[in-house]
Amino acid sequence: MTPPPISGIDHIAILVEDIDAALPYYTETLGFTVISDDRVEAVRARLVMLALGESRLQLVTPIAEGPIAEHLRTHGEGLHHIALKTGQIDVVVNQLSPDVPVRVVRGGQQRLGGFLPYRPNNVMLEVIEEQQEEPVPHE
Amino acid sequence: MTPPPISGIDHIAILVEDIDAALPYYTETLGFTVISDDRVEAVRARLVMLALGESRLQLVTPIAEGPIAEHLRTHGEGLHHIALKTGQIDVVVNQLSPDVPVRVVRGGQQRLGGFLPYRPNNVMLEVIEEQQEEPVPHE
Repeated sequence: MTPPPISGIDHIAILVEDIDAALPYYTETLGFTVISDDRVEAVRARLVMLALGESRLQLVTPIAEGPIAEHLRTHGEGLHHIALKTGQIDVVVNQLSPDVPVRVVRGGQQRLGGFLPYRPNNVMLEVIEEQQEEPVPHE
Repeated sequence: MTPPPISGIDHIAILVEDIDAALPYYTETLGFTVISDDRVEAVRARLVMLALGESRLQLVTPIAEGPIAEHLRTHGEGLHHIALKTGQIDVVVNQLSPDVPVRVVRGGQQRLGGFLPYRPNNVMLEVIEEQQEEPVPHE
C-alpha cells in the first residue's frame, strides 16, 4: 500500500504539571522560543509551542478534566505524543484508521489535528494539518 | 546566559521490545525509511534510525543488561528520549551540566552523543554532535 501523505514530524509534546514553571528550562536554558500559547477547550489543555531551528516542542498541561488530566494523573510528567504533519489530514486519518473514526478538532495555532487510536509501542500519534486554510465545518 | 549552541532536535527515540517486530508499522504503514542500524555496545542497545522528510525517529532495544534494559523493564515500551543536535557537543554538555560530567560516546551512525543528567519534566535529553569529523580520543 502507498504510504499516507505525511511529510515528517511536526512536533514532540511533553506533558507537564505547570507550564509556567516548566518554561524557563526550555527557553532560557535550552534556547527555545515560544511561538504560540493556546487554551484549547476541545482537548481541555493549554498548549505552548516552542521552536528551535526547524524543530518544534510542545508543552501540554490540562485545564479541565479529560484524557490529558487523566494521563497526567496516571503517568505523571514526561514525553506525551508525536505529531505527524500532512497537507491532507482526512486522507491520512482515513488511511491510518480505516475502521475507527478519528476526532479531528482545531487545536493550538488553529490547526486541525486528531489522535490516532492505534498506538504503536505505546506511542500516542497525532496527525496535524500543516497548511492554514479557510475553516470548514469538520465535525 | 547565552543559550548553548543547539540547532534543533536531531531525533526522538522510542524504546521497543523487538525492533524487527516494531519496524513494519513505521516503515510500511507510516512511510519512514531505515537510514542506519547499529549495535552500540557502549549503550548496550541496537539503534535503528528512521527518516521521513527532514525528521528522524529512532527505535531502541536493549542488547544486554544496562540502563536501557532496566528502563524497558520498569516503564515498558514507549517514548524514550529527545536528542538535541549541535556542532559543538563539548560546549553544550559543559554548559548544560557544569557540575556532573556527561559520558560522551560514539553511538549510532558513529556520532558522538551523551545523556544529560538533568531531566526536565522527566524527559531524558541526549545531545548529539551533528557533523561527522575525524574520530578523536574522547574518553
